[in-house]
Amino acid sequence: MLATLLHGPRDVRVEERPDPRLVTGDDAVVRVVAACVCGSDLWRYRGIVDFEAPKLMGHEFVGVVEQVGDDVHGIRVGDVVIAPFYVCDMTCVHCRGGVSTSCVRRGGWGFPDDRGVLADGAQAERVRVPVADSTLVRVPEGVDVDALLPDLLALSDVCGTGHHAAVSAGVGSGKTVAVVGDGAVGLMAVLAASRLGAERVIAFSRHPDRQALAREFGATDILEERGREGAKRVHELTGIGADCVLECVGTRESIEQAVRSARPGGAVGYVGVPGEGPAWPAQYLFSTNIRVAGGVAPVRQYLPDLLDDVIAGRIRPGRVFDFETTLDGIAEAYAAMDERRSIKALVRMPEPPAAA
Amino acid sequence: MLATLLHGPRDVRVEERPDPRLVTGDDAVVRVVAACVCGSDLWRYRGIVDFEAPKLMGHEFVGVVEQVGDDVHGIRVGDVVIAPFYVCDMTCVHCRGGVSTSCVRRGGWGFPDDRGVLADGAQAERVRVPVADSTLVRVPEGVDVDALLPDLLALSDVCGTGHHAAVSAGVGSGKTVAVVGDGAVGLMAVLAASRLGAERVIAFSRHPDRQALAREFGATDILEERGREGAKRVHELTGIGADCVLECVGTRESIEQAVRSARPGGAVGYVGVPGEGPAWPAQYLFSTNIRVAGGVAPVRQYLPDLLDDVIAGRIRPGRVFDFETTLDGIAEAYAAMDERRSIKALVRMPEPPAAA
Repeated sequence: MLATLLHGPRDVRVEERPDPRLVTGDDAVVRVVAACVCGSDLWRYRGIVDFEAPKLMGHEFVGVVEQVGDDVHGIRVGDVVIAPFYVCDMTCVHCRGGVSTSCVRRGGWGFPDDRGVLADGAQAERVRVPVADSTLVRVPEGVDVDALLPDLLALSDVCGTGHHAAVSAGVGSGKTVAVVGDGAVGLMAVLAASRLGAERVIAFSRHPDRQALAREFGATDILEERGREGAKRVHELTGIGADCVLECVGTRESIEQAVRSARPGGAVGYVGVPGEGPAWPAQYLFSTNIRVAGGVAPVRQYLPDLLDDVIAGRIRPGRVFDFETTLDGIAEAYAAMDERRSIKALVRMPEPPAAA
Repeated sequence: MLATLLHGPRDVRVEERPDPRLVTGDDAVVRVVAACVCGSDLWRYRGIVDFEAPKLMGHEFVGVVEQVGDDVHGIRVGDVVIAPFYVCDMTCVHCRGGVSTSCVRRGGWGFPDDRGVLADGAQAERVRVPVADSTLVRVPEGVDVDALLPDLLALSDVCGTGHHAAVSAGVGSGKTVAVVGDGAVGLMAVLAASRLGAERVIAFSRHPDRQALAREFGATDILEERGREGAKRVHELTGIGADCVLECVGTRESIEQAVRSARPGGAVGYVGVPGEGPAWPAQYLFSTNIRVAGGVAPVRQYLPDLLDDVIAGRIRPGRVFDFETTLDGIAEAYAAMDERRSIKALVRMPEPPAAA
């Protein structure tokens, strides 16, 4: 099969790899229908994060089940499934405690699973899925998968990640919300805040296309200012600062902007992946009682509810994809996102031959 | 009247000061019955925090109302009252939002009030109380104030502050809790966790007397280890880390110990006043989804409920006082706390002459 490998910074190649096969009884093999490129893939692409080359790429996909192990009972061959960006068993103490991202069987695509066997990357024709019964979420029969493909694919990561920021910050009916970051996750956070009943959603963005999408997702105000100036504008708009701030970037600057945009006693929900530098300022948080919650999003738990909303047409998270290609064009998808020509890129895999 | 002034590090003096008088209609004048020395008073005492000398000291007191301004209607001359460690109006947007410590009229004892008039320090015979109606909490008639004095006084700061750590961390029925810090606030946090229904309360302490008091307040386990070793012991005891960690110190070391003691998806409630150095580690919090909440405690809001429990004999927070003196001996109270001979010192003011 074909799979995407990163051989070094800006060196994306599609290469032949062995077809995946079942290793244990709880594995499945899924034929990928579509995958995406993630903002976090760009860290390795840009050489910001070290990695052992060549690296199997991709951690978001929608596909069709081709094989299941003997212990897999919840999904069947032919099912359309959505994979979250990590593997989890949904029964361990951490999954039950609400943090499936800390599952005792946690694994990631393109990394060894909990038994030490490499899991495939998702930017590929096929993927072996460890702990398949609990990891994968089945799309009900009768859903028009072709029509909803971008929306279903967004549930793999960005939609649930934006949702986690909103849930972590306690967004609910009547709240004022400010969203720091206008990337795919930030835009999904706008959607999540709106979906959860926020009264006012203030999005920071300087890009007309992203501003327009933020409005479509429910933003009531757009601010072009950044940093302390941006935070000051939130205070002017709200009188006291936002009840909830959703931090979707992860830099020192965005963290400061987020914290200073919140009202005393407010909350910052964060999903921006922090590098080694950033920290939350203890003294400022102490004096204002602003709380901080979030982290790597347990999207698997959110997936069923968000899927219901996608199927019912209540949310269209797939609108975040503004670039589409096929596997052989994936290097261009990386380049488009790297150069910010694209918010998020969708990659369709080749259709299997009719005889397959 | 007599009041306590700090003239420089370790230079505590009791000196004659003008008797307070009503300045505006919403002031009251309260005769102090008892005040305390706070751990935070020691920062200036030790010269860790700069201040303009001489500084009026004390921010916790129980007293009897002697005069009220024309606009004060909720308290009357002769009422026994408890003062929180700050002034607030309980009606502004921040008070209504749950953070009376960010009140638009916020002021502190020994600092200028919101009209620029210096408020007295509480380690004194009398205090002018700005915004008196909302700041002061009346002790109902019929309560045996002499018998409950230490308990009532603890409500001024430490009891509500420990409670805030517990509330911020979401302590509730069945939770496992670890408490970092065995000072007065840490011990109050143990009491608060127990009062809120925690199943297991793990206290870090190396001092036999504080260990004993922690047990009395409801600690189920005592750990003498500190730092990462201490956190490791919490993981051993609980299997996964504590659901809630109450951070009651505020140093770099205690913050690390607190964060590492929590389970993935758990919470740190913090009330330890951070200096300029400490920060919350973004990367560790991100990967574990441990949330952080707390800050300067809005004890005024908690005071009525905690007072009910004191009056009903359900809690005895005053047990934290292990040193008692009168105003003329207050320098020794500072020294005893500074040298850790005392957890917390209570200072009784002179009885007024019978004719007064």
